[in-house]
Amino acid sequence: MGTRCGRQTVALSTKPTIYAFTSIAGKKEGEGPLGNQFDMVFEDAFLGEETWEKAEMRLYEKCFSQILQKGSLSPSDIDYIISGDLLNQCTSSAFGMKDSSIPYLGIYGACSTMAESISLAAMLSDGGFSAGNILSMAGSHFCSAEKQFRAPLEYGGQRPPSAQWTVTGAGAVCISHGGPIEITHITTGKITDLGIKDANNMGAAMAPAFVSTLTAHLKETGREPCFYDLIVSGDLGLIGKEIALELTGKEGFDISSNYNDCGAMIFDPQKQDTHAGGSGCGCSACVLCGYILPEMIKGTFKNVLFIATGALMSPTTTQQGESIPSIAHAVALSKLQ
Amino acid sequence: MGTRCGRQTVALSTKPTIYAFTSIAGKKEGEGPLGNQFDMVFEDAFLGEETWEKAEMRLYEKCFSQILQKGSLSPSDIDYIISGDLLNQCTSSAFGMKDSSIPYLGIYGACSTMAESISLAAMLSDGGFSAGNILSMAGSHFCSAEKQFRAPLEYGGQRPPSAQWTVTGAGAVCISHGGPIEITHITTGKITDLGIKDANNMGAAMAPAFVSTLTAHLKETGREPCFYDLIVSGDLGLIGKEIALELTGKEGFDISSNYNDCGAMIFDPQKQDTHAGGSGCGCSACVLCGYILPEMIKGTFKNVLFIATGALMSPTTTQQGESIPSIAHAVALSKLQ
Repeated sequence: MGTRCGRQTVALSTKPTIYAFTSIAGKKEGEGPLGNQFDMVFEDAFLGEETWEKAEMRLYEKCFSQILQKGSLSPSDIDYIISGDLLNQCTSSAFGMKDSSIPYLGIYGACSTMAESISLAAMLSDGGFSAGNILSMAGSHFCSAEKQFRAPLEYGGQRPPSAQWTVTGAGAVCISHGGPIEITHITTGKITDLGIKDANNMGAAMAPAFVSTLTAHLKETGREPCFYDLIVSGDLGLIGKEIALELTGKEGFDISSNYNDCGAMIFDPQKQDTHAGGSGCGCSACVLCGYILPEMIKGTFKNVLFIATGALMSPTTTQQGESIPSIAHAVALSKLQ
Repeated sequence: MGTRCGRQTVALSTKPTIYAFTSIAGKKEGEGPLGNQFDMVFEDAFLGEETWEKAEMRLYEKCFSQILQKGSLSPSDIDYIISGDLLNQCTSSAFGMKDSSIPYLGIYGACSTMAESISLAAMLSDGGFSAGNILSMAGSHFCSAEKQFRAPLEYGGQRPPSAQWTVTGAGAVCISHGGPIEITHITTGKITDLGIKDANNMGAAMAPAFVSTLTAHLKETGREPCFYDLIVSGDLGLIGKEIALELTGKEGFDISSNYNDCGAMIFDPQKQDTHAGGSGCGCSACVLCGYILPEMIKGTFKNVLFIATGALMSPTTTQQGESIPSIAHAVALSKLQ
């Protein structure tokens, strides 16, 4: 049963936990600073398929079979899959999971998907709707995202320095009781829109959403930023990260010593030509499941606040002159002793 | 707290209810058999905008302000909005709700969105995550859907007889405790895919998903079909409805006397040239909120099983030769005395 702490935050009372997790990443991600952390790195960006969209479906399938294997689970042990992606009509999730025979709840949170998915899974688990496991999953593919959101790769478009690089990869967590990492609080984001219209500067558009959710979380839980060993945003990238630090300071909170961003962590911008850093549903999913959760198990971090951020625009809204509304959802994690 | 009845079904224990509801529909829907039932019928398909996508955003905004008015609610009374739509990146929901200042959870269930949204809202309410109200919303617009999924209206494409007509309209329900209609059970769908590839015959693609969820619901709750005064599918249309009746019969259940389909109810196919009937997120949302719920209040129906169906394809997957995976989610409603 949930307990409301305020307008946006609920505390979970039955100690739902992350029981198992997995990550899968592409070649470029495998060459980055976290490259040796992922459970699997694949070399063929097509994953044996002929289109980028089908490749992304295979990515989801692989991620799904990996989590079953890592958690020693069969599909019948999983009560719900909660998953989403960036493709139009969220087809990589649906097609990737279509043969699983597991009750399926599709979500759309843009790059906030991993946090939204964990939020819903944790609340359903805490509310008694699962006797076993709930699977949360998110991912993205650089090539399908470029094709859909910007231009086909063959076009060879130039990217401005503020542009981010969509991560090719996916992550999944299995939520149930009795695992090593407790999900203590969920803070659900409100949509924020400060009128930014530059679709090549998503970090600037999403930073206010991160700050809004972070400050709501801190105020509603009464926790100080220093409670967390790591406060991590999803994919603000290098530019958004600086804006987030500045805006958080203006709200009266200092997170300079324990804040990082998944998009800033996954690539080496100097060596890898990724400009402002990583983005995409797969960015926060891979970094959470490939780096943060393993480091929590090792003891590097005890308490982590994971805040994935999403830009809720489409190419059509940008073409029609709309601004970029954004959202961020926070999941508070604590390692159990 | 939820109680699991089986693989797909949970029973809700705290009596979450539909406290308020509203519907808004376009001109053609207003001229159909249910035309005088909707709370609002608008004449201008553009809703004062210059593009169909912006019109759909206004549709969501209007639906949102109507539910606030009908329920005598202010935004601060609403703990979560759970909403989705058919547009790429679900932008009509996000843009329509971006100024609401309410925690927002975006979902994607194609035309099953209304049932998925109510399912999640009812479970969050039952699980103690809301002290007040949760808003579920879905809608669609014929012109934006034609443009995105088929061809721009100006192209003047011919429609085959099996094609359905996307409903222009939206519906919203407010879920809390103390309302007149109880949500007793939720049955979450598994994705089904029988290999149908004809994107102009969605009813045939979605009918097996409806039957799968219906039979799971009946077996897991132990209820006979006759328990329900109405079993209603979302938007199978005239062709899908016949297939659904036949397939349900093969499963050993007779629903011939109490089954109908929202897509078959909303238009008069002879007079309105809508071929196989209505479809779209807005179809089941409008019929639920404009006809079924008001008739439950009047006493026409006491127990209703609402099963919205969704085809989880995209134009890209169809172009790439993929089949049409489908899903259906069931919500069991009972009028309180």
